Amino acid sequence: MPKLKNDRLIRALQRKPVDMTPVWIMRQAGRYLPEYRKTREQAGSFVKLCQTPELACEVTLQPLRRFPLDAAILFSDILTIPDAMGLGLSVVEKQGPRFEKVIRSQDDLNKLGVPDPEAELGYVMDAVRIIKQELDGKVPLIGFAGSPWTIATYMIEGASSKEFSHAKGMIYQDPKTLHGLLDLLARSISEYLKAQISAGVNVVMVFDSWGGALSDASYPEFSLQYMQQIVNEVKQSSEAKDIPVILFTKGGGMWLDQIANVGCDAVGLDWGVNIGYARRKIGDRVALQGNLDTAVLYSNPERIREEVGNVLHAYGHGDGHVFNLGHGIHPEIDPENVAALVDAVHELSVDYH
Amino acid sequence: MPKLKNDRLIRALQRKPVDMTPVWIMRQAGRYLPEYRKTREQAGSFVKLCQTPELACEVTLQPLRRFPLDAAILFSDILTIPDAMGLGLSVVEKQGPRFEKVIRSQDDLNKLGVPDPEAELGYVMDAVRIIKQELDGKVPLIGFAGSPWTIATYMIEGASSKEFSHAKGMIYQDPKTLHGLLDLLARSISEYLKAQISAGVNVVMVFDSWGGALSDASYPEFSLQYMQQIVNEVKQSSEAKDIPVILFTKGGGMWLDQIANVGCDAVGLDWGVNIGYARRKIGDRVALQGNLDTAVLYSNPERIREEVGNVLHAYGHGDGHVFNLGHGIHPEIDPENVAALVDAVHELSVDYH
Repeated sequence: MPKLKNDRLIRALQRKPVDMTPVWIMRQAGRYLPEYRKTREQAGSFVKLCQTPELACEVTLQPLRRFPLDAAILFSDILTIPDAMGLGLSVVEKQGPRFEKVIRSQDDLNKLGVPDPEAELGYVMDAVRIIKQELDGKVPLIGFAGSPWTIATYMIEGASSKEFSHAKGMIYQDPKTLHGLLDLLARSISEYLKAQISAGVNVVMVFDSWGGALSDASYPEFSLQYMQQIVNEVKQSSEAKDIPVILFTKGGGMWLDQIANVGCDAVGLDWGVNIGYARRKIGDRVALQGNLDTAVLYSNPERIREEVGNVLHAYGHGDGHVFNLGHGIHPEIDPENVAALVDAVHELSVDYH
Repeated sequence: MPKLKNDRLIRALQRKPVDMTPVWIMRQAGRYLPEYRKTREQAGSFVKLCQTPELACEVTLQPLRRFPLDAAILFSDILTIPDAMGLGLSVVEKQGPRFEKVIRSQDDLNKLGVPDPEAELGYVMDAVRIIKQELDGKVPLIGFAGSPWTIATYMIEGASSKEFSHAKGMIYQDPKTLHGLLDLLARSISEYLKAQISAGVNVVMVFDSWGGALSDASYPEFSLQYMQQIVNEVKQSSEAKDIPVILFTKGGGMWLDQIANVGCDAVGLDWGVNIGYARRKIGDRVALQGNLDTAVLYSNPERIREEVGNVLHAYGHGDGHVFNLGHGIHPEIDPENVAALVDAVHELSVDYH
C-alpha cells in the first residue's frame, strides 16, 4: 500500500493535529453529478453499477476530479449483504430498493447464512482494490456497511418504509427471531468490513439510517448493541484494529453518550444536533463528523461560506472534527455549490488549527 | 357549557392531582376502526369527511364508544387552513395530501390572507359545537392545528415530502419570504384556535410533525418562534387564556428545554425520548404527554401492559403526565389491543397517584 499523501481524515479521526479540517460528503458520488448519471445509465441499473467494479471505481473517483475532497468513499449500497444472502435486490428509480423475499419468521431466518465476502461479495472487494490502485494514495478510501438494524428493516419490510410496522412490530411480537437476524447481520457485516479492510479501505463507517425510528428503550437493545458487536469484531482483528470506525445513527442525537461508549473512533452527527454541544458531551472520547444542513447547498457560495463558518465555530478550536453534511447530498444540488462548500471548509478551518 | 364529568386530562395538563393517569391516543379516530372506514366511505373522500360536521362528529365519537378514553380529539386535518387560503387540498389514499397551488415566492405569498375561521372554516367550528353537544361533558374535547412550519412545508412542497428540498431550501435562499409565510400562518392558526376555543374545545394542541427535519440552528427561528407567537396570542385572549396548550414537535427531543420555555402548558414527546429524562429536564415547568412506541400495539395485551408499565415507571410518581403514544396509531392495529392499552394505563397508574 502506498503511503497516504493526504492523511487529514485519518488524523482527524484519531484526534491528532491537522493543518485544516478534512471534508468529504455523504453521497458525494451520486446523482447531483452529470458524469455520475451518465455512468449510471451506461451500467443499465443501480444494482449493476454497484456490481461492476470498474464502473463503481469510476463513480467513486468522479467527485475527486472536481473537488479537493479529503476522502473517497467506496461506491456501493447498504443492501449488498441481504442481496448476497439471496433476497433478490432490485432498485427502482425514485421508489427505492425492493427485495423479492422478506424475512418475517424463524423459518425465513433459518435459510440465511453469513456470506463469504470474497466469494459472494467479490465485486465489492474488487472495486476496493481497483479504486485503491487508481487513488495511488492520494486520499484515504472509506469503506462502509449499513447497521444491522437498518439492513434488517429492509429485509423485514421488503422495501423502504415510513412506519416500519413489521420490523418494529417484531420488537414486541417476536424479539427472539429479530435478535437472531440482527446477530446474523452483525456477524456478516463484521466479516464484510474486515474483507473491505483487507482489500485496502483506510476507514470504515456504519450507517444506521433508521436507528432514529426506534424508541429510547429499543435503540440500545436492537441497534446499538449490534453495532458494538461489529466494532468489537473489527477491533479484535490484527489487520483491522488500527482502522478508524465511524458510527452514524441518523436521529440519534438523544443517544450520543451511549454511542460514544461502544469503542468507535468517531460519531457521525446529523444536523439536528449542535456540534458544539456534542463535543462537550463526548468529544473527550471520540472524533465527530458532520453536520451541515444539506439544504444550505440550495443557496449560494456566500451563504454556504457563512453556514460552514457557523459549523466550524460551533465545533471550535482544536482537533477531532471531520466536516460533512448531516445526511446525504440531494440530486438537485448544483455541483458549483459543492465546490464552494469544500473550499470554504479548507479556507475557514485553518484558523481553528 | 356543561361541567366536565371527567376532568383528568385538564387536571393533568395543569399538573394537579388525579386519581389515575389520563389517556388518549393520537389518531384515535382513524382507519384502525372498521366503523371509521365505513363513515369515511360514506363521506366519499377524506376531505369531505373533514368538511361534513355531522360525519366529523360521528368519527370523533367512535373511539369513545369503544374505549374509556379521557379525551375526545376533534376529527379534522392540519391542512384546513391552507385549503381555506385557496390552495386546493385533496387527499389521495396512501399517497397523502396534494395542493393544486404551491407557495414559493413573495408573489405567491402576497395572494394569501388570514382566513376568517367562522366564515371560511365554519365547518370545523360547527363540528366542534356538535361534538360538544353530543359529548355532554363526558370528557374534554381537544382542538388542534398544525404548526406554522409543518403547514408551510406542505404549502411550499405541494405534497408530503421526505427531504423538504423546497421548504428547507427557502431557509437559506429566501428566508424573508419564508418568515412572511410563517408569520401569516401563525396569525391564521391563532385565530383558528381561538375560534375553536370559542366553539367549545377544552384544550388545544399544535402538531409540529416536521420540526424534527430542521437543523438545530433553524428550529428555534423557523418553527419554535412561531409556535410561541401562537401561545402568546392564545394566552392573551380573555376567553382562551385558561385553555391548556400542548406543543408537540416530532423528533424534537434535543430541544425540550427551549420548547418548555415558550409558555405552553404541556409538551408532547415522541418515543425517542425517555420520559423520565424529559421530566427531570422540564417537568418543573410543563406537563408531559406521551410516549409509548406505537409498534407495541402490534403485540398482545400482556406485552402491552408491560410496556405501559415501563412508561408509567419512567415518568414516576406524581402528577403532570398525560398518557399517549409517541406518534399516531397505525391503520393495521387491532382495536382489541387499544382496549388493552387504555385499561392498562388506568389500572397500573393508580399506584402512581
